[in-house]
Amino acid sequence: MSNEENAGTGRQLEVGILLFNGLTALDFVGPHMILAAAGMKVHLVSATSEPIVSDNGMVITPNSTFDNCPTRLDILLVPGGFVDGVMRDSATLAFLADRGANASYVTSVCNGSLALAAAGLLDGYRSATHWATRDHLAQLGVQVSTERVCIDRNRMSGGGVTAGIDFGLTIVAHILGDDVARFCQLAAEYNPKPPFDAGSPEKAGPETKAIFDEFIAPFDASLRQAVSHVLEQRTTVSSRPT
Amino acid sequence: MSNEENAGTGRQLEVGILLFNGLTALDFVGPHMILAAAGMKVHLVSATSEPIVSDNGMVITPNSTFDNCPTRLDILLVPGGFVDGVMRDSATLAFLADRGANASYVTSVCNGSLALAAAGLLDGYRSATHWATRDHLAQLGVQVSTERVCIDRNRMSGGGVTAGIDFGLTIVAHILGDDVARFCQLAAEYNPKPPFDAGSPEKAGPETKAIFDEFIAPFDASLRQAVSHVLEQRTTVSSRPT
Repeated sequence: MSNEENAGTGRQLEVGILLFNGLTALDFVGPHMILAAAGMKVHLVSATSEPIVSDNGMVITPNSTFDNCPTRLDILLVPGGFVDGVMRDSATLAFLADRGANASYVTSVCNGSLALAAAGLLDGYRSATHWATRDHLAQLGVQVSTERVCIDRNRMSGGGVTAGIDFGLTIVAHILGDDVARFCQLAAEYNPKPPFDAGSPEKAGPETKAIFDEFIAPFDASLRQAVSHVLEQRTTVSSRPT
Repeated sequence: MSNEENAGTGRQLEVGILLFNGLTALDFVGPHMILAAAGMKVHLVSATSEPIVSDNGMVITPNSTFDNCPTRLDILLVPGGFVDGVMRDSATLAFLADRGANASYVTSVCNGSLALAAAGLLDGYRSATHWATRDHLAQLGVQVSTERVCIDRNRMSGGGVTAGIDFGLTIVAHILGDDVARFCQLAAEYNPKPPFDAGSPEKAGPETKAIFDEFIAPFDASLRQAVSHVLEQRTTVSSRPT
């Protein structure tokens, strides 16, 4: 499926994936592999063409910037990770609001949903997010979904990290059909056999969840502050005299 | 689990992941996320510190080179992708042979197994590989496993692409225990729900497999030549007068 034209559309679909410092690479590398296997053109977009560094130190160079990213994307995708910086960055939020208003699909994986919400793109929509950030998403006024992949009109979102692969296959099927998605799944040998059944807090149990809660506490506090910041900005804007 | 010492070992474990042009990023980004969540230090190693470009155009900068990569790795990991160049590159094969001889675990995801075999590291071992490259691995004299994750003494290998996540959890459990692996699985929300059941050629069926076979044909021919090259080199070496 490396052909230049995506099956059934007559042209190559264009995807914009937001890159930012502190992102979780697996959030976007999963869907990137699937979308590229389906023949889509993927723009890895950041504010500038400077390399970004992932949450575990992986250095990735964007191939597109806020200035030269296509204005009309078929899919806008925001991965998660340390998204608190993005939620406070007016240039990134303006970019998301602009491309989101013009994109055919506005999507996220993991807590990338918080960035979409901060940009005002999830008002009145349902969205999934990483299980540990559901409260934050609700605070921002979004209807939180606990589905692996959530579809609400042209918004599509995956849950935490590895849900990006299920998201990728789902959106490919949605746009290009089941046969293309099945081809992508076979190429990725996506026949998962997790050695444990601990992929949700309910399944992992209270002891494993307690270890995670302690691990995530400092970041959770930063996220809480970022959510407050977004809510304050909204109040400031809405209380301005007209 | 971002602590500097891995549970039960008393020191931070060191992982070397080979980066090369044409690799499939998802092959290593899955296990990278899991191994880093388990507190391991990951070296992304290439011949030089120049960025490499993945099979779908992602630009990644190594943080280690053949010269400065630790000589004694706990885990050596080779991802797959367009590995034919690696199979012909004597500097890369010499690096793999050297670090492989000293590593506690010699591992691969996807057809990274072909590079390990070319470096002579799978002689007398069983190994998994991407389903579409099983014949090539057998040609190199390796006992091919169709398991999702194959363990044979200190060799551990995952099948195609997404098997890297299952591989990552399996090796973390093997070295650091089930509790650490369960923490990593919860962090990655690895609770897969593929929208289709097409992750193996048997499940995908003959029509989807035929599309994949056509897609992969040019690369398959290159791999076939690379396998012949490796076998010729072996014959040349073994037929030299002693």
